[in-house]
Amino acid sequence: MISEKMKGLVANSSVIRAMFEEGKRLSAIYGAENVYDFSLGNPNVPAPDAVKEAAIEILQTEDPVKVHGYMSNSGYEEVRAAVADSLNSRFGTSFTENNILMTVGAAGGLNVILKALLNPGDEVLVFAPFFGEYRSYVANYDGVLKVVPANTETFQPNLAAFEEMLGPATKAVIINSPNNPSGVVYSEETVKRLAAILEAKEKEYGTSIYLISDEPYRELAYDGVFVPYLTKYYHNTVVGYSFSKSLSLPGERIGYLVLPDTLDDAEDVICAANVANRILGFVNAPSLIQLAVARCLDEKTDIDFYDRNRKTLCEGLSACGFSFIYPEGAFYLFLKSPIGNDAEFCAKAKEYNLLIVPGSTFGCPGFVRIAYCVSYETICNSMQAFEKLAAFYGLAKK
Amino acid sequence: MISEKMKGLVANSSVIRAMFEEGKRLSAIYGAENVYDFSLGNPNVPAPDAVKEAAIEILQTEDPVKVHGYMSNSGYEEVRAAVADSLNSRFGTSFTENNILMTVGAAGGLNVILKALLNPGDEVLVFAPFFGEYRSYVANYDGVLKVVPANTETFQPNLAAFEEMLGPATKAVIINSPNNPSGVVYSEETVKRLAAILEAKEKEYGTSIYLISDEPYRELAYDGVFVPYLTKYYHNTVVGYSFSKSLSLPGERIGYLVLPDTLDDAEDVICAANVANRILGFVNAPSLIQLAVARCLDEKTDIDFYDRNRKTLCEGLSACGFSFIYPEGAFYLFLKSPIGNDAEFCAKAKEYNLLIVPGSTFGCPGFVRIAYCVSYETICNSMQAFEKLAAFYGLAKK
Repeated sequence: MISEKMKGLVANSSVIRAMFEEGKRLSAIYGAENVYDFSLGNPNVPAPDAVKEAAIEILQTEDPVKVHGYMSNSGYEEVRAAVADSLNSRFGTSFTENNILMTVGAAGGLNVILKALLNPGDEVLVFAPFFGEYRSYVANYDGVLKVVPANTETFQPNLAAFEEMLGPATKAVIINSPNNPSGVVYSEETVKRLAAILEAKEKEYGTSIYLISDEPYRELAYDGVFVPYLTKYYHNTVVGYSFSKSLSLPGERIGYLVLPDTLDDAEDVICAANVANRILGFVNAPSLIQLAVARCLDEKTDIDFYDRNRKTLCEGLSACGFSFIYPEGAFYLFLKSPIGNDAEFCAKAKEYNLLIVPGSTFGCPGFVRIAYCVSYETICNSMQAFEKLAAFYGLAKK
Repeated sequence: MISEKMKGLVANSSVIRAMFEEGKRLSAIYGAENVYDFSLGNPNVPAPDAVKEAAIEILQTEDPVKVHGYMSNSGYEEVRAAVADSLNSRFGTSFTENNILMTVGAAGGLNVILKALLNPGDEVLVFAPFFGEYRSYVANYDGVLKVVPANTETFQPNLAAFEEMLGPATKAVIINSPNNPSGVVYSEETVKRLAAILEAKEKEYGTSIYLISDEPYRELAYDGVFVPYLTKYYHNTVVGYSFSKSLSLPGERIGYLVLPDTLDDAEDVICAANVANRILGFVNAPSLIQLAVARCLDEKTDIDFYDRNRKTLCEGLSACGFSFIYPEGAFYLFLKSPIGNDAEFCAKAKEYNLLIVPGSTFGCPGFVRIAYCVSYETICNSMQAFEKLAAFYGLAKK
């Protein structure tokens, strides 16, 4: 009796649930410390103490009717102003509170902007590899997801294919850098070329093409790599941000959309996003945590923790003989499967108690994702398992 | 460039915004204390201290990786178990954590269950007067909202009309008791008759008809009036609950769905709701506040505060000569407009600095909603304005 649209998703969800059950089963047999679960993007680093301190101070000193009450659907005005100021000081932008819409995480924000923009049949382009949930977000509004094939050499967007695939029905493009699952950061050169292509196509077709930049990993960039702020390169850019990873608050569901005045029909888009936030049932981003993050905009997560994991994992996997793109950001490593069938490779990995996710999930078969937001011990202890896995496939040790 | 669906909503939202602006304008001229804003359902009673104490204790003593982390999309298992136990002890039900899905408020919950159930064209019946947002929630999934006309004598559901309107395309019925905007509580007799009609129609058409009970005001019932727990009367009942009013946490966006095992295709519906919660972008209900409300399930809001407002308002309006249904629950009073055009009456009321909402918004023209979740002073001070308004329409003082 459930909706037709949900039937396939429910069937698929059972598969994912089965994977979780398998993890639990393995833990029961071998002990949790001997099962190496690299499947989830759940930060292992605790939120900075400043978040706790801010939340407690707000609870102790501010009026509960305000702290827990309704505010504008777009969020507290002072929170939005604080976010705008922070962006302006870091990126040289000139946003005001009117350009900021506080959202229920980045997932909420992406749904809000897609609801605001899409008519049934509108095309949304994504670059493989991409976060698999985009499929559902676009389908929610009867959009048509089109996947630009990966450039598996560099994992920078494949702009030649992109240019060909852009058409008069293209309403939006979603990009995600630092990228989940590849860990690649899109270079400024890539961004400039991407913007130039979009501008040319907008002119050619007389349409508006919105670039939606999904940026939960913005703050997770290593070795000082430059992560361009996209509103500065292309007028029709909407940024979706989340504090899930930058402040380790994934369960709190707090993020924001940036809706610049340079958008085509900016006033309508801002109003539509505001209405969409209300009618999709979010109503507003959770209130206490809005006030708390506004006081923690200069806080940083412990990037050294992830960086140590990254380096140890890369060294270890490289020594085993595996191939991969060296990750510059986020906390994912995208490994080349030694066999074409990435699902089969993941199944084999599980025999060594290694839980990893097939690249097919991200529109990029032949690769697998390893989420290294785990304890350092898990990285170190898993190495003997990766060694056995490499040996099974006859990879040459380095 | 925004979606066609959003265009009408954006236009309409400007009207609402204009109303807010008017309120601000009036406050600037006459002083906020001389403007009587009865337009919003934002509780004026602070959250119980226990919520603050629970949140602080959790922040101070529990692992932040757990407190702010991802959990199952349906919520923390122990939170869901606590909610199930609380319901079982209060209503003699026998739910487990598997029947509870923590949601981003009741608005989030309603969207989740409608997404899980509706195919395009499926009909959803609501009883006038009803919370106007149901229109959008049903339209989000291309459902067709059908409004059962009000019984303006009692404001109990018009079951004769309901029975006629139920058809083979009816997938769901939304009810809301205590009711926004009428303040009426649906009696046990009403509920039993409603259930009997639904069961008969399910048999007649060989379909499943889901009864969605939207219950943010369950705990706001006066004079010991009985509010039936609907899962006990009809097998296909889904309950949507919110802590927004019962614990004065509307900004926190925390509630839950009850999905009983007695539902047709219960396992699929529970799984679909779980998936819908994820893909609509909620992902999960906010984590800290989940843990906090689980410790406050026996807490109550200050119902005496609302009750005093209710009695003073009813006495005052009655003395002015206005007609209305005496509210038994929630914090709304539904006043009969002395003229047929409720919007015109609201415009006139505004001339006396009284901000009230036309019944047309709730599918019930000829009435207006007065939200009395305001300060007691506002109730008392507004009476001279209501007197003038009544005098303008020549109502006879009592």
